[in-house]
Amino acid sequence: MDYASITPVRKEVMSVMEPFLKEFFANPSALYKEGVDNKTAIEKAREEIALDINGRPGEIIFTASGTESNNLALFGIFNFFKKDKFVPHIVTSVIEHPAILEVCKEIEKLGGEVTYLPVDSQGFVLISDIKKSLRKNTVLVSIMYANNEIGTIQPIREIAKTVRAFRKSSSNIYPYFHTDASQAANYLNLNVAELGVDMMTLDGGKIYGPRGVGVLFFKKGVSLAPVLHGGGQEGGLRSGTENISGIIGFAKALGLAVSEREKESARLIALRNYFISSVLEKIPNSSLNGSLEDRLPNNINICIPNISGEFAVIKLDSLGVACSSSSSCRAISENSFSYVVEALNNNRKCAESSLRFTLGRNTKKADVGKVVNLLPRLF
Amino acid sequence: MDYASITPVRKEVMSVMEPFLKEFFANPSALYKEGVDNKTAIEKAREEIALDINGRPGEIIFTASGTESNNLALFGIFNFFKKDKFVPHIVTSVIEHPAILEVCKEIEKLGGEVTYLPVDSQGFVLISDIKKSLRKNTVLVSIMYANNEIGTIQPIREIAKTVRAFRKSSSNIYPYFHTDASQAANYLNLNVAELGVDMMTLDGGKIYGPRGVGVLFFKKGVSLAPVLHGGGQEGGLRSGTENISGIIGFAKALGLAVSEREKESARLIALRNYFISSVLEKIPNSSLNGSLEDRLPNNINICIPNISGEFAVIKLDSLGVACSSSSSCRAISENSFSYVVEALNNNRKCAESSLRFTLGRNTKKADVGKVVNLLPRLF
Repeated sequence: MDYASITPVRKEVMSVMEPFLKEFFANPSALYKEGVDNKTAIEKAREEIALDINGRPGEIIFTASGTESNNLALFGIFNFFKKDKFVPHIVTSVIEHPAILEVCKEIEKLGGEVTYLPVDSQGFVLISDIKKSLRKNTVLVSIMYANNEIGTIQPIREIAKTVRAFRKSSSNIYPYFHTDASQAANYLNLNVAELGVDMMTLDGGKIYGPRGVGVLFFKKGVSLAPVLHGGGQEGGLRSGTENISGIIGFAKALGLAVSEREKESARLIALRNYFISSVLEKIPNSSLNGSLEDRLPNNINICIPNISGEFAVIKLDSLGVACSSSSSCRAISENSFSYVVEALNNNRKCAESSLRFTLGRNTKKADVGKVVNLLPRLF
Repeated sequence: MDYASITPVRKEVMSVMEPFLKEFFANPSALYKEGVDNKTAIEKAREEIALDINGRPGEIIFTASGTESNNLALFGIFNFFKKDKFVPHIVTSVIEHPAILEVCKEIEKLGGEVTYLPVDSQGFVLISDIKKSLRKNTVLVSIMYANNEIGTIQPIREIAKTVRAFRKSSSNIYPYFHTDASQAANYLNLNVAELGVDMMTLDGGKIYGPRGVGVLFFKKGVSLAPVLHGGGQEGGLRSGTENISGIIGFAKALGLAVSEREKESARLIALRNYFISSVLEKIPNSSLNGSLEDRLPNNINICIPNISGEFAVIKLDSLGVACSSSSSCRAISENSFSYVVEALNNNRKCAESSLRFTLGRNTKKADVGKVVNLLPRLF
């Protein structure tokens, strides 16, 4: 029950990857037939992904992870706009993934300005806060689509509208709006036109695709500076020989995620709600972190007062249940509390006493039944 | 005959990767058993790689490509040492891979200084040039182990000695010496202590391992700033969820390359020399680009006056032979000449009229025989 941390590669995805791992290995930049064929295969994958998110093929950059996509989005905009006398300003939230927050810290060291917006008690960024944060020098707003720890789904369309309205009123090409949709991709609408986003991060390892492959959507007209320099692949925006099997696998995984989204979301929402209501009923003083309504279908994050989240994870492991106490990100787990849960009501106690269960394709009702019976006996 | 561009994944490598693609998918940062097991598997891979190059496990960083390793080496040193009043200086050569040269150009834009050393008529960097180039503010010398286009093997030990002597005399911790060993890894000694290098780049896609995986060796004590920021994986130097199957596959591929190096090198040297001598004999005025003696065992690069290299690649493709006219790097092939060959004697004509054939594990004597019979009939 830790599918937010990583997902297994689906069989259908492995099947399309294997020929490119074993047989069709040519460098897509080569001039001979095998190279040209592989270039064609990559462009076909790019078209499929574009269709899945209602973007254009030229708006898709392949990277090696969601982390790299986030780095490219933030550094890419910052470095493009940073000029001698212009100090770019970025707006984000305090509950973003470290792949956003650590980049923002680095951007501050490089002379940029960053506003870290608070969230309310359920983890929502407030539109009024977004409005107040926008300045003349704001080049980017980056707010995640859905949180990896508490599953809260942000009001992306409203944020996009707010950013667009400010952009229009200031008659500039910026600020742009970026969203990290790594956790959202299996369950939420990824139509970039409907969402109104200028940039969007996706991660193969979260959608039952290959890990080591990410995508950054960037709308036509968005100006980016590359992070990795070299052979000039991906239109000069991301150098390095293309990971062809990974790219093919990513496209397949995203296609499956999009086509199965509604059915799988409905299935998991039922399991999730059963999990949450059972546990809250059976464990005294336990409470749900985040929103029940605007929540990822697969996310359960519960505060159980006075337990050690980390110890509970290890105890549950010995009983055959894999879950997490915060993000699986190492730097964070060293601190052994969740900065995301802490940001809700400034609740440090809950931040050390919370458990995250994230369901996935292989989670059955019996699995949930087992855990909801087990948990109250432990605490 | 384009193995320098990319190699297929060996069966033995696929075998060790498959379980981690299909079954053991847990996030290595997770606290439960499956995560801890995967962390252990990654550390075992790291130890194997360290043994293969006579380094220490803590000196190995996993990246997503040779390109990323090169970016990390150069930006990592540059950004670490860049201070208000200190302008870091980097020494490299004009025939480095674009993943070095383009990073150097970017470093110049960021205020750094770069010296691009020329090469002699066979492609060698001269030790006397290295000596002259070193300055008080030189933080890094980056010279590739063996060239990807002409196969020339640089005097790495002598360069290392020169850099070390300068470092000692200047009583600084820098300059460091980095080498891109992406093309060398199948055929040359990778013992970092014997070579005397401080940093070394390796690429999975060149050693019959997975593409999308690279390694940067950096000697204990070398100070690096990260390029990608986020969850703090790889000791904070390279964030992003670990590509576990890729890492396991890389370790296997490198182990096989190292253990089979001598035998395979001897086999390919015989094929290479037969190829070179036959073609030079049969095609009037043809000549070898690069050195015959200090040359990668699998590299043949021949100038055939007045032909178009690019057209010849396409013609040969139609006859069932895959080769290249320069590096398979897109940005370069757009220019349709080889800047590496041009750098030898400033010979632009040969730079447009050269063909590179790079042999590999599946190249048999009959394949070479076919090509050496075919070529003279074409030109």
